[in-house]
Amino acid sequence: MSDVRIDDLPVRDELRGKSPYGAPQLDVPVRLNTNENPYPLPEPLVERITERVREAARSLNRYPDRDAVQLRTELAKYLTETGGHPLGFENVWAANGSNEVIQQLLQTFGGPGRTAIGFEPSYSMHALIARGTGTGWIPGPRNENFAIDPDAARRAIAEHKPDVVFITTPNNPTGNAVPPETVLALYEAAQAAKPSMVVVDEAYIEFSHGDSLLPLLQGRPHLVISRTMSKAFGAAGLRLGYLAADPAVVDAVQLVRLPYHLSAITQATALAALEHTDTLLGYVQQLKAERDRLVAELRATGYEVTESDANFVQFGRFENAHEAWQKILDRGVLVRDNGVPGWLRVTAGTPEENDAFLDAVRELKKEL
Amino acid sequence: MSDVRIDDLPVRDELRGKSPYGAPQLDVPVRLNTNENPYPLPEPLVERITERVREAARSLNRYPDRDAVQLRTELAKYLTETGGHPLGFENVWAANGSNEVIQQLLQTFGGPGRTAIGFEPSYSMHALIARGTGTGWIPGPRNENFAIDPDAARRAIAEHKPDVVFITTPNNPTGNAVPPETVLALYEAAQAAKPSMVVVDEAYIEFSHGDSLLPLLQGRPHLVISRTMSKAFGAAGLRLGYLAADPAVVDAVQLVRLPYHLSAITQATALAALEHTDTLLGYVQQLKAERDRLVAELRATGYEVTESDANFVQFGRFENAHEAWQKILDRGVLVRDNGVPGWLRVTAGTPEENDAFLDAVRELKKEL
Repeated sequence: MSDVRIDDLPVRDELRGKSPYGAPQLDVPVRLNTNENPYPLPEPLVERITERVREAARSLNRYPDRDAVQLRTELAKYLTETGGHPLGFENVWAANGSNEVIQQLLQTFGGPGRTAIGFEPSYSMHALIARGTGTGWIPGPRNENFAIDPDAARRAIAEHKPDVVFITTPNNPTGNAVPPETVLALYEAAQAAKPSMVVVDEAYIEFSHGDSLLPLLQGRPHLVISRTMSKAFGAAGLRLGYLAADPAVVDAVQLVRLPYHLSAITQATALAALEHTDTLLGYVQQLKAERDRLVAELRATGYEVTESDANFVQFGRFENAHEAWQKILDRGVLVRDNGVPGWLRVTAGTPEENDAFLDAVRELKKEL
Repeated sequence: MSDVRIDDLPVRDELRGKSPYGAPQLDVPVRLNTNENPYPLPEPLVERITERVREAARSLNRYPDRDAVQLRTELAKYLTETGGHPLGFENVWAANGSNEVIQQLLQTFGGPGRTAIGFEPSYSMHALIARGTGTGWIPGPRNENFAIDPDAARRAIAEHKPDVVFITTPNNPTGNAVPPETVLALYEAAQAAKPSMVVVDEAYIEFSHGDSLLPLLQGRPHLVISRTMSKAFGAAGLRLGYLAADPAVVDAVQLVRLPYHLSAITQATALAALEHTDTLLGYVQQLKAERDRLVAELRATGYEVTESDANFVQFGRFENAHEAWQKILDRGVLVRDNGVPGWLRVTAGTPEENDAFLDAVRELKKEL
């Protein structure tokens, strides 16, 4: 149609020369690069989804429930049953993936003239969504073991007075969890500095050895916990993220959410998945065992491994991580090169997939 | 959980005191307030949706096609067949409702330090999404018949030099279309002033007496046409909006889109609906006839009516439009009070729904 390039258009200056975010989608036998759950949904759940979608499709000419009350009620029940803290629908908000939840939070509490901090390396979408919402980004520190040092973090918060503090636990891409006492210390520091909102990203919490931080919500209206159905619920294709917080936070994000943002089909599918929570959490138990096996085997093979509370493992160290990534790929296994110097990340797959990965990294070890 | 209110939270200043956007969702026999298509999807399409969703659900543990290539290909075919201008998937982008399309466009071409203009009254989400993305909003003029006066509009563009120009045709809530020569004049003015992006919102174009402006895309890389499946496709519950433009525009919005923004379930459902285009466009023909009947009957009853090329009709004039809205509601018919002084908006429903509405406004006329 034309030979126009992006830079010929009047795009915002900060977008010039950028590339879209996203892992390579390569056609490889074993894909362990995007922290997907390797287990397809059980067939009874697939049938339940089609039943609920059929019903929703019959009134698809109507707008969906704008406030997604039934879905938020069921999500609140799930959190209450698994999180050790009673929550109602008024504490819960849902959107198209936790990315959209975070975007709404930054539109509400961040934005132009405001800043957010995250402790890096961490989930890189936090910084990218900050950029997309005009929120200034402050890279906060982690120590050499990829842990958040409470004193260093508190100093960073006191110095920069960010409007939003992101704490990812278990952290992505490193896999380690943040102790509750560190989260509490950072929350207190954030209140003293501004006060700021503290967003705890628990996308991988169901895989943790420890508990959710949901009970900390009690009496802390500036605390938000974000979640997703992509990982533990095995539903990355569904794009269903949610948050738990004080009802005032839920009210506030409704000032920026696009009306009817969550389709009737998405709501129906998520409700079906929530009916099968027990089965899906059974898969989580299997994946936790496989994750622990990956950690043990990688160490036995001579790799360094970061403690993992997630469904993935960070391993290294490599003189040239990208070269190691390519050599593993040459053996038919796709892992993730997150740009953390010296380290790669592998998702816990099925036992067979993990065996293929372990074979590949054992062979690789001989070459290093 | 607590008695915290929104204003107790550190929300952005411009959100303080605001209420969420959205029409009241009241339980009323005849709902003609949100421009929904009154015809449920035909049962064969419902079955096709469940088939495609069943297939998608079986790999729901995987992320969806991030670039939605198959869906964009089918949308391009639909536009090519109905729009009089050949387009490929590289010309098309899709998102969760045209609201998200517009949000992505403003994140790319608007944002902090930039401005957008719309000619009001028009679709109020343009201004709200501008606010949500930090884009300055300029209310541009319409004349007393709700038409865009080309000279006044060109002067406004030359004066304010907006980065984005919105033209809604057919316009919502007034219903009238913008002549192609006006769109061309505004495009030229926008190029002379900046150059700016011109976004033509054709959400209701399938109901128009005239043709889509898609052929104008040829040779105009700063022109974007946005569309939706909510209205003509009878799929408001699906939340599927899309745009057609130069491939460079499609590349550019991918710099701001949230990765994997469009779920596998949404893609599957939209693909099913596109297989049934002929049936759905048959309903559009029925609705156009009903819309013309509403215009004729309202005029015969003594109301003023704005020319309509949409699936709704703006009628008046009332000394107190909100009071008239309430009196129509008291008769079991929900129409929309858009805040245009003296006017209300009614969606073309089924013949029975339109009869109920016409009975109500005939009775109302006697009271005025």
